[in-house]
Amino acid sequence: MTLTFRKARADDLAAIVAMLSDDPLGQAREAAGDLTPYRAAFADIEADPNQFLCVVEREGAVVGTLQLSFIRGLSRGGAKRGLIEAVRVARECRGMGIGRALFEWAISECLAQGCGMVQLTTDKSRTDAHRFYDALGFEASHVGYKLALGAP
Amino acid sequence: MTLTFRKARADDLAAIVAMLSDDPLGQAREAAGDLTPYRAAFADIEADPNQFLCVVEREGAVVGTLQLSFIRGLSRGGAKRGLIEAVRVARECRGMGIGRALFEWAISECLAQGCGMVQLTTDKSRTDAHRFYDALGFEASHVGYKLALGAP
Repeated sequence: MTLTFRKARADDLAAIVAMLSDDPLGQAREAAGDLTPYRAAFADIEADPNQFLCVVEREGAVVGTLQLSFIRGLSRGGAKRGLIEAVRVARECRGMGIGRALFEWAISECLAQGCGMVQLTTDKSRTDAHRFYDALGFEASHVGYKLALGAP
Repeated sequence: MTLTFRKARADDLAAIVAMLSDDPLGQAREAAGDLTPYRAAFADIEADPNQFLCVVEREGAVVGTLQLSFIRGLSRGGAKRGLIEAVRVARECRGMGIGRALFEWAISECLAQGCGMVQLTTDKSRTDAHRFYDALGFEASHVGYKLALGAP
């Protein structure tokens, strides 16, 4: 299986949003019928050198995505950390190792950027994901808190 | 009590790093004796319009800090989220409500930046912090995973 990892382009948006929507939690959060707000968000992401919205291609089709953010901080001796958000693999391609390959790519990209740590949060209900992150060597050392705000 | 919230300046670095170090977890992670790596990290943070390293002043002294990162994503309809890291209040000023005021400032800043959510992770061992975030209305809905990398 040959997989290609690359920065997302504007013409990948429909495929990415379809994957974000095709998910027990995502289906309530996304509105894939109108790409307008996603186009505006994509422009922001593309303009920020500390953001890497990744897609993985297999046989010419986009079959996975994640967003990597590189965040410099003062703590831990001024370390840079990589934050992973919005991980999805297309439904018809699950169980093929694409998620694992995507994470191996993301971790190597964080190393290349000089990050001292990679972090992510995952909903407590995603127990399959917990096993996946445990197997990759991530440590479930933290509690992830969220506060929804009124703004869109 | 009058508190002032502002962007950190280079001459706040010693006070910020002292607070990061004066902490059960931080003391093993920080090397406050040599500010050189922190100066380099500060320059990166200051150059990034999506980073806001905040200090809170009381009676002319820096008594608290946190780092806010504004991250645009595709998920949740292209929402921007605020990420809070590296929260500290100076030991001699704890129990005075400064932490709460700092979070109220951070949440209002996230709203002003158009964020739809504020998120943070906290070590599972910080049970006092968990009560604090619960009281602020944050929901402990996620598991926070970390993977340490070899790079500094």
